[in-house]
Amino acid sequence: MNAKFIVVEGLEGAGKSTAIQAVVEALHAQGIDHITRTREPGGTVLAEKMRSLIKEEHDGEVLQDITELLLMYAARVQLVENVIKPALNRGDWVVGDRHDMSSQAYQGGGRQIAAETLHNLKQTTLGDFKPDLTLYLDIDPKLGLERARGRGELDRIEKMDISFFERTRERYLEIARADESVVIIDAAQSMAEVANSIRQALDSWFKVV
Amino acid sequence: MNAKFIVVEGLEGAGKSTAIQAVVEALHAQGIDHITRTREPGGTVLAEKMRSLIKEEHDGEVLQDITELLLMYAARVQLVENVIKPALNRGDWVVGDRHDMSSQAYQGGGRQIAAETLHNLKQTTLGDFKPDLTLYLDIDPKLGLERARGRGELDRIEKMDISFFERTRERYLEIARADESVVIIDAAQSMAEVANSIRQALDSWFKVV
Repeated sequence: MNAKFIVVEGLEGAGKSTAIQAVVEALHAQGIDHITRTREPGGTVLAEKMRSLIKEEHDGEVLQDITELLLMYAARVQLVENVIKPALNRGDWVVGDRHDMSSQAYQGGGRQIAAETLHNLKQTTLGDFKPDLTLYLDIDPKLGLERARGRGELDRIEKMDISFFERTRERYLEIARADESVVIIDAAQSMAEVANSIRQALDSWFKVV
Repeated sequence: MNAKFIVVEGLEGAGKSTAIQAVVEALHAQGIDHITRTREPGGTVLAEKMRSLIKEEHDGEVLQDITELLLMYAARVQLVENVIKPALNRGDWVVGDRHDMSSQAYQGGGRQIAAETLHNLKQTTLGDFKPDLTLYLDIDPKLGLERARGRGELDRIEKMDISFFERTRERYLEIARADESVVIIDAAQSMAEVANSIRQALDSWFKVV
């Protein structure tokens, strides 16, 4: 089997870290040991610098929505071209903490940037490249943000209004329902139940790929 | 008269700094004292950070052409929305060291990025916003780079092959010839002659705006 690109997606507090660990363990159980892990935005020297432009405060300067979007794609191009594609080409599986679906959901749904703008940027930067499988951890943003707050300080994006996250979740669900390569996982479950759902989703997927 | 946005464009070593000084003096001679000066990429806290992502080396990581383009526009959006538009709105004239024409010429001409990609990005980020007047300092890249080398170390872009700059100049000229708001200045002249050409161009322009 060729190496594949598996992505975990979801709102703050959905339990992505636990889910990623479950994915890595499930891959090991299949005898897949060469795994490259990525996170977005970030994952290269330049992309991590862009991540801090997006996430941190900069002398109170307003980060325009469209700038945020351009930086997300700039970071994604660096990661895809310099890390993900080379990994897949040498036979490493890639497990990603977020990918393009995050931009569709947060910038498209949350920030309400026009669909055409997102479509053009995606085509320009990624072409037909996409994950082989996406596990979308679905959670009510109220519960997710409560969990995230329990972890400590919130960043610039995590400080947005609840309605921002509701729009983001709605877009996540729209995409998930329309795309056969996305599996929806109920992230309101306990961590153990989420991990179990992921194992089951991967077992089913391994039978067909 | 409403405040205007005047841009100086041209290859490395074309003499943009001298030209900008001549523009500022010509504005002063017209009694215009409130002038905001900008440079691209850069000119805001965030945009200057993007400038260093573009210009410097980062542990040898390849900066993809499309990433460079996205960063140029990300920086431009920050500058236009946070500096240029507010300046014009309060009545300051704005004199820019480079603007969108640079992306058209360097990324479109030099790096040969598709015209549609550039067009979409420009529309998304700038809409109808454009300079009222652009002074394009035209120079043979051989002469320009020789002058630039005389100033010291070259950055990542200035290290490109001569053919890159030839394509860039060609695109600059194409745009300049098709756009009535662009005046071509012969930058092979002496600094004093260039300054004189700029004064004459501005005098003519002031009669019609």
